[in-house]
Amino acid sequence: VSVADKSSENKYDNLLAKRAAGAVARGIGAPTQKMIAFTYGLPDEDSFPFNDLAAAATKTIMEDGKTIFQYGAPRTLAAYILESLRLEEDTTIAPTQIAVTAGSSQAISLVARVLLDPGDVILCEEFTWNGALHIFKNAETTVIPVEMDEGGLIPEKVEAKILELQAQGIKPKFIYTIPTFQNPTGSTMSVERRLALLDIAEKYDTLILEDHAYHGLAFEGDTPPTLFTLDHERKLGRVLHCRTFSKILAAGMRLGWVAGPEDLMVRLTGLKDDGGTNPFAGYIAATYAQENRLRNHIQDLVKIYRQRRDLMVAALDKHLAGTGVTWNVPAGGFFIWLKLPEGLDSGALLPKAQEAGVNYLPGTSVVPQGVDGKSYIRLSYSFVKDEEIEPGVAALAKTIKESLA
Amino acid sequence: VSVADKSSENKYDNLLAKRAAGAVARGIGAPTQKMIAFTYGLPDEDSFPFNDLAAAATKTIMEDGKTIFQYGAPRTLAAYILESLRLEEDTTIAPTQIAVTAGSSQAISLVARVLLDPGDVILCEEFTWNGALHIFKNAETTVIPVEMDEGGLIPEKVEAKILELQAQGIKPKFIYTIPTFQNPTGSTMSVERRLALLDIAEKYDTLILEDHAYHGLAFEGDTPPTLFTLDHERKLGRVLHCRTFSKILAAGMRLGWVAGPEDLMVRLTGLKDDGGTNPFAGYIAATYAQENRLRNHIQDLVKIYRQRRDLMVAALDKHLAGTGVTWNVPAGGFFIWLKLPEGLDSGALLPKAQEAGVNYLPGTSVVPQGVDGKSYIRLSYSFVKDEEIEPGVAALAKTIKESLA
Repeated sequence: VSVADKSSENKYDNLLAKRAAGAVARGIGAPTQKMIAFTYGLPDEDSFPFNDLAAAATKTIMEDGKTIFQYGAPRTLAAYILESLRLEEDTTIAPTQIAVTAGSSQAISLVARVLLDPGDVILCEEFTWNGALHIFKNAETTVIPVEMDEGGLIPEKVEAKILELQAQGIKPKFIYTIPTFQNPTGSTMSVERRLALLDIAEKYDTLILEDHAYHGLAFEGDTPPTLFTLDHERKLGRVLHCRTFSKILAAGMRLGWVAGPEDLMVRLTGLKDDGGTNPFAGYIAATYAQENRLRNHIQDLVKIYRQRRDLMVAALDKHLAGTGVTWNVPAGGFFIWLKLPEGLDSGALLPKAQEAGVNYLPGTSVVPQGVDGKSYIRLSYSFVKDEEIEPGVAALAKTIKESLA
Repeated sequence: VSVADKSSENKYDNLLAKRAAGAVARGIGAPTQKMIAFTYGLPDEDSFPFNDLAAAATKTIMEDGKTIFQYGAPRTLAAYILESLRLEEDTTIAPTQIAVTAGSSQAISLVARVLLDPGDVILCEEFTWNGALHIFKNAETTVIPVEMDEGGLIPEKVEAKILELQAQGIKPKFIYTIPTFQNPTGSTMSVERRLALLDIAEKYDTLILEDHAYHGLAFEGDTPPTLFTLDHERKLGRVLHCRTFSKILAAGMRLGWVAGPEDLMVRLTGLKDDGGTNPFAGYIAATYAQENRLRNHIQDLVKIYRQRRDLMVAALDKHLAGTGVTWNVPAGGFFIWLKLPEGLDSGALLPKAQEAGVNYLPGTSVVPQGVDGKSYIRLSYSFVKDEEIEPGVAALAKTIKESLA
């Protein structure tokens, strides 16, 4: 019988699971504030393919209603994913290696369930997705941050951290990483770093959880192969890989997937307690995706988000050059990561920025315990209108300059 | 760092969570066998409201697309649930007391997450839903069965079991019960038993998880108020209550809900790791439900399932009278529960029944560890055609009689 955190004043304390003692809901959903919102990693709402999804819904309901309204799993979507992996990434995996999930949130949650006992340790990037941190906290895990630079996670730092833990008798269960168009830093790991990270996982008998949430949203040049594909080629079986349809189709359909070694996937699906991933949403998404509609739609999204990145970079150049603020130029995804000059605190700055009409995510919201994010700002260009970007950055720049003065 | 079950030959043994050592997926989904299937607790596939759901999908996508395709929660469905509780059950609760979930599977899984640490103990009916047993097993819980009779769970037996556990220093975290049209026994607890069960929960400081999956599917007479409503009236705060839209609308939309004391619901939603329950499915279901469409549809379903129950009872009377086989006549829901005469084993009988063209769920599939279900058979009339019922029961009766001879 567990004893919950006594600092809580919940009348159910003596009946709560340990993990529940401090649990509170993470804010999810559309913003209510009226200011220019560089805050949210939400997909652009004007570009959802309303007409095509309505047509796909009607067609799927009328033709496959008995399947999509019954218990089951969205098999046609799983088939589409396997086919796309084969066609676009030359990676052929078995149907038993993949599970369609309720977004990558559920994918990451399932990986946590299959691998983590309370008290276990994992590694992650020092700046990372706060949704994943929330999941790992719920799993009663200790999350150890590893240093990054503009090229993402630094393999040597990962190895050093593993050795440091090893000296304490601790083996990390896995390394959580977003190697491509990283959230929040926008960084992308080179293929050399990816191969080095795989070597480390193999050498120290640990796993990698690769979150590829921004798949498809590459603005230019070649994107390195995923850790999953590299692992597959080398037959190591060290990578669990998850993606979502939230950024490339519609977050509200709650569709994503996780793939990995069959031995692990068998156990993972055995812990999936939701009665099957939404067949209604899944079959409709698969109908929509046919005839290259989804592939073409992603190309449209790339144009939209690239344009916004360009507008934001231009505005940053115009308004923040010479202030000591630095930023990256992401090759894809949703985010630009600002580093403030010494002495500025992004948390303290936030109310002033909001007063000036612009909102952002302070670095303190995207760090595991023990990391100081106060010098950083995440700017998202995904959920603002093109014409909001320049005035939003101008307002932010004005706030920063006033604080510097 | 955990050490997984060494009997497993999984190469990832030393990286698996303890709960994952024996995890395997539970079969969910439509049957593939051609025989008459009294096996599955699936909703009737011909009665899904295809046209109305297609219309609701188109309307919702075109009018609320920016909401239903974005991150969020299906707020209109939560509002519909609260309104229905108020109108139909005179139970008014706050929006903070309810969470829409992916079916009652996710609801039960969340209750397990918020209340159960590994090694905790819960009580449940000696015959119960195997999906819930799967969830409790994944939660590394010990499930203690409590005796039932034709009136469902016996409160005196619950109290005796709690005292027995108390003597061992163990307090059960909650009592899982399906008090209405129970799965698999079809039994319904009287209001007296419900009140007695509440008293016990209060007296011994434990909770009740009430699974009301067959809500609305009452064939005749008054159904007793739910434990949730009785608890609400008495302001005890002892009941977590879950329902599903799987039986009354469409299982494939994966919609259900859980409600309970606000203090618990706050923690429960904090452990909900799926990025929000499917807004796409949820908003469409809420649009469909308007103008009494769902309420009228449930009345149509009652006629369909009552007719099937009547056909099955008549067939049992015709073919099994005098054989020593006994059964209940359920007042609602999907199931008839057969008790075989001494010496017959429903597991051993199954291949013979299948050979004769009829399938069923043996009692051994619906019992916690330690309960012998081999004298029992669950017959479901929900997923067969009217005209299959009499021949199916005749084939089963022939098999039973041959085994008795």
